[in-house]
Amino acid sequence: LLHIKNKIDKDYKQEQPLFLGIDGGGSKCKAILMDQNNTSLGTGISGPGNPVYGSELAKISIVESASLALTEALLNSDISQELKLNDICAGIGLAGVNLPHVYDEMIKWQSPFKSIYLTTDIHIACLGAHEGHDGAVLISGTGTCGLSNVKNHSKIIGGHGFPQGDKGSGAWYGLNAVEAVLLALDEMAPPTTISKYMCQVLKASTAEEIISKVAGKPASFFARLANTVFSALEDKDEVALAIIDEGASYISKMARLLLKTTPPRISFIGGLAEWIIPYLDQDIQKQLSPSLFPPEAGAVFYARHQTASLK
Amino acid sequence: LLHIKNKIDKDYKQEQPLFLGIDGGGSKCKAILMDQNNTSLGTGISGPGNPVYGSELAKISIVESASLALTEALLNSDISQELKLNDICAGIGLAGVNLPHVYDEMIKWQSPFKSIYLTTDIHIACLGAHEGHDGAVLISGTGTCGLSNVKNHSKIIGGHGFPQGDKGSGAWYGLNAVEAVLLALDEMAPPTTISKYMCQVLKASTAEEIISKVAGKPASFFARLANTVFSALEDKDEVALAIIDEGASYISKMARLLLKTTPPRISFIGGLAEWIIPYLDQDIQKQLSPSLFPPEAGAVFYARHQTASLK
Repeated sequence: LLHIKNKIDKDYKQEQPLFLGIDGGGSKCKAILMDQNNTSLGTGISGPGNPVYGSELAKISIVESASLALTEALLNSDISQELKLNDICAGIGLAGVNLPHVYDEMIKWQSPFKSIYLTTDIHIACLGAHEGHDGAVLISGTGTCGLSNVKNHSKIIGGHGFPQGDKGSGAWYGLNAVEAVLLALDEMAPPTTISKYMCQVLKASTAEEIISKVAGKPASFFARLANTVFSALEDKDEVALAIIDEGASYISKMARLLLKTTPPRISFIGGLAEWIIPYLDQDIQKQLSPSLFPPEAGAVFYARHQTASLK
Repeated sequence: LLHIKNKIDKDYKQEQPLFLGIDGGGSKCKAILMDQNNTSLGTGISGPGNPVYGSELAKISIVESASLALTEALLNSDISQELKLNDICAGIGLAGVNLPHVYDEMIKWQSPFKSIYLTTDIHIACLGAHEGHDGAVLISGTGTCGLSNVKNHSKIIGGHGFPQGDKGSGAWYGLNAVEAVLLALDEMAPPTTISKYMCQVLKASTAEEIISKVAGKPASFFARLANTVFSALEDKDEVALAIIDEGASYISKMARLLLKTTPPRISFIGGLAEWIIPYLDQDIQKQLSPSLFPPEAGAVFYARHQTASLK
């Protein structure tokens, strides 16, 4: 038995190395420990992992989520109980590492991992969706972004942040909902049943109360109001429909530009995707393929790729 | 001569009291000391006077601007050299005092003035524009707002803040300019010469640089980019024209709602007014009357009114 166990350890450590994949987002950081067969051995979730708002907190969150994933793997898998973070290569996808100063800050990190491979959160999302292969993704969560990766060429659209960009995102829908409600209360625009849902969610009943609750709030707060627009569809609300169509046509147009790069697959991911899909142009809807793996798995594919290309 | 001097002092102090008017804005606080004939005896300008972002700083700015106005008056006018702030009633118009907690904070103030009369910045702007009489104002500066004051009834439209409101304001034009430039750089919207002016003003040359310079910036920052839209008119830029028209038609609509209250006069004030006026509906343009006095003078009219009604 001991002989077999040692054999397995050797395999995992050398011939079939395990990889950690990390997806560091603004509100949480997700980690996955995966074997060569793309089987998840353990996962972990921790706090904010976006280095733009504090690289120290991001580093803590990355290590915490990775430790949780490893702990789960040690409990449930046949891997060596002596396996440590220091034995494992980590692929890490982070928002903001397209900015040179953020990338430099993170790449200099004396991490507890064997080595780290750093790329953007959007890149790992795309790799995850297509099991590490070429393809394109449309993302609508708190923000919006589009990326295509075809034959080592990548094209990126959007992702410019709130409020100056991110049309069709949760934050954009939330902001447009608040605008529509305030215009309606002023009789400067048609009445909308979004008001009803907005007042419920914000526990507000006047324009003053709505304003005092939303003033100065970040994108993540506005994103939580996006559902008020989609709720108003139940009332066949014309104002809500116009807002939804404007966001969806931005996503459709983004898809069209990405399709020009001839990706083998295109997926639409993120919290708003399922709500928006029915409002995309018909031909775009038909071309969407399901996402195969989550972004943290995409980070594993990225790290595997990088280590393979280094050999 | 001494006899005459004493007579003047008495007049000013009792029969023809002087009033201070204060306009406390987000970037600066303006004060005016006015006599009964609406002659300015002295003026002063100091730092931020908006209590929403810190009531202590606002109080310091109010006192500083008032002291400067009094100092100027003592140098240049025939008023008693013994006149102190404590002898003078002040009308004070401040953003945010429509919010109960801001009003309470300011009205409890143990001010250095004889007494204070507190109202909103918009109210004093309207009183100033119409020399203390009934009327309506459209305001487009960093924000937008409309107010009509007719027979003790007031109607207010807009003023909901950035980015959820304030359509047609400097901040709104600036934000729309940035959006248009970023969409054009992504080829998600037509190219626009706004880009050229935007890159000059921001000293930026790529989307990344533009985003890093505008991300997280307040309304006042975006307001400084409004001129890029109006500059692009020189190139007959269609994108700029569409943005300008959208903002202007909001202001025209606001004017229409205010005109329903039958104000004797309506004025359009604020830093963006002269740029927007040519794009308002023709019939609205024709009904505009010039503003007669600045907002700080409106604060004097307000204080005079209030003391008269207390008698």
